[in-house]
Amino acid sequence: MDNYILKNENAIYYECGYSCDNAIYLSLGSEAFFITDARYTIEAQLEVNHAQVIESKDLIKTAQKLIKEAKIKKIVFDGNDFTFETYNKLTQDLKTKCINKPNFSMLKRIIKTPKEIKYLTKASKLGRKGFTLLAKYLRKNGFETSEKFLHFKTIEKLTQTGKFDVSFDPIFAINENSAKPHALPTNKKLHMHDLLLVDAGVKYKRYCSDRTCTAYVDFEHLNFKREQKFKNPKQQKIYDIVLKAHETAINGAKSGMKAKEIDALARDVIKEAGYEHYFVHSTGHGVGLDIHEHPFINSKSDVIIEDNMVFTIEPGIYLPNEFGVRIEDTIVMKNGKAIIL
Amino acid sequence: MDNYILKNENAIYYECGYSCDNAIYLSLGSEAFFITDARYTIEAQLEVNHAQVIESKDLIKTAQKLIKEAKIKKIVFDGNDFTFETYNKLTQDLKTKCINKPNFSMLKRIIKTPKEIKYLTKASKLGRKGFTLLAKYLRKNGFETSEKFLHFKTIEKLTQTGKFDVSFDPIFAINENSAKPHALPTNKKLHMHDLLLVDAGVKYKRYCSDRTCTAYVDFEHLNFKREQKFKNPKQQKIYDIVLKAHETAINGAKSGMKAKEIDALARDVIKEAGYEHYFVHSTGHGVGLDIHEHPFINSKSDVIIEDNMVFTIEPGIYLPNEFGVRIEDTIVMKNGKAIIL
Repeated sequence: MDNYILKNENAIYYECGYSCDNAIYLSLGSEAFFITDARYTIEAQLEVNHAQVIESKDLIKTAQKLIKEAKIKKIVFDGNDFTFETYNKLTQDLKTKCINKPNFSMLKRIIKTPKEIKYLTKASKLGRKGFTLLAKYLRKNGFETSEKFLHFKTIEKLTQTGKFDVSFDPIFAINENSAKPHALPTNKKLHMHDLLLVDAGVKYKRYCSDRTCTAYVDFEHLNFKREQKFKNPKQQKIYDIVLKAHETAINGAKSGMKAKEIDALARDVIKEAGYEHYFVHSTGHGVGLDIHEHPFINSKSDVIIEDNMVFTIEPGIYLPNEFGVRIEDTIVMKNGKAIIL
Repeated sequence: MDNYILKNENAIYYECGYSCDNAIYLSLGSEAFFITDARYTIEAQLEVNHAQVIESKDLIKTAQKLIKEAKIKKIVFDGNDFTFETYNKLTQDLKTKCINKPNFSMLKRIIKTPKEIKYLTKASKLGRKGFTLLAKYLRKNGFETSEKFLHFKTIEKLTQTGKFDVSFDPIFAINENSAKPHALPTNKKLHMHDLLLVDAGVKYKRYCSDRTCTAYVDFEHLNFKREQKFKNPKQQKIYDIVLKAHETAINGAKSGMKAKEIDALARDVIKEAGYEHYFVHSTGHGVGLDIHEHPFINSKSDVIIEDNMVFTIEPGIYLPNEFGVRIEDTIVMKNGKAIIL
């Protein structure tokens, strides 16, 4: 095994079962070190597995000292994980060769363990519960309230009022705002017959859920089920195309395929319908400790999809200044097939 | 003026009045460029001042091309603002010398303009309103609810249910949890006679507020005023020391002093009382677009404090496994003196 150094919180958590917002993890031959400051030492000593906890006022300096003492020839780091400034400080007067291997740590996590799949399943279940609570709230109180207010309520419902953390800042977008794949909430208010797009997720034991629903707004029946009936025929048409793309990709995804073949399953449906230029992003991304992980399901990736990979399927069509539709589920590959979490 | 390149969202906003989560700003001689992707081009064209907006699918590559075309000898960047990987990509095959000047951009913002002070004042006003709303909520509904729940309610009250953004993830800590300067919320519940520490802020037009209150919990009178009466005499004693340190620093701070002299004003009060080892952080930090900016008010800084600098005064005493007290206001230097925002 190579020697390596990590700074990313999730990467460190994956190695030793604990992390915090100021830590460095060093793997040097058969030894490992978790370096942190005085605020976290006690917790770290209780929680860190298979690594020696070291308290430091200057983490990089301490890491450098340990690397020097180990007298190793080379050490691997991820150039995305270190700023130029931190890299400079680490390598100053260091004879050990530092080798930049982008994503080496995240790639370790591409296939999930049974325990990780259990946590991701639980996170998805909590996420779905959040959507149900939000639908209930919207039916009763959503009328004439703003995206900003309902964006906040989305967080409240997803987290069960602070019991859990969101896995990312949710998207709550009405009509033409939903045409922006990464819409920010505005003062625009929710009305009858609107099209509503909600993209949200929650964490369970640090593992993320991720789901997007597009819904027809009707304060009697509003729900986040996949079957939706829009008053506007164009919205219904686009919704049906995206749903077909979504289902085709999930039903067609098989272990052994390349990621780009799964992307094509969704993209071809949208292409056949003539909307390929309005599907402006990739079909999906891995989900785990990070909300965006490997494998990336795009038109260029030759990565072979395997059992126990977890990723999203999220085709979308965005008609600028009109509306957008995205339908997203997180799936796990099991016995060669995609199962919705 | 030097040529320079920026990636940090707030640094870019400061230059041209607009920013987003994927942009690069280039200042090359008399020309300036704002490079972003298709999601933000329209907004950028409307909002960016004094720079040409360029749409790109590969921001770094486009930046490199512009630098090459400008045929300049050197360009300044902030090594904290670029990952090692991004730096590598930018400098590959580039003849222009890239000079790492840490914090060069943030240091431009150390003295606030009248407009910035107006926004910071408004942010502080909104922040204080949030504390008042929170106190009212706690008196009525706080009893026997958890830190996690009340941490969420703190965000709700500070943001006025999503109308504004928080300037950082707030701290809501009861009794022994308040002894951790950066406590995370737990399932611990709020009771009569508890000591409560809340550190929270909100943004107005991207400018941050920052305030910490320590309060005695009494569901009839709970408030976030500076005058507090604790049942526990030790808590009262510590509170009074911290309040004296806080007031001494605010009343004693004068333009022309070194930052470390202001730090000493607060630190000496705590030292005289015998608690210097329990005041484990610096006395304050600048506040602006970033929640932590220059000037840093610590025991080592020789920075000369000037009119129109904005920073916090936040002494604290933390007794491990017992409780902690911190009292924080954000101040602006005006006519040589510190005024609480």
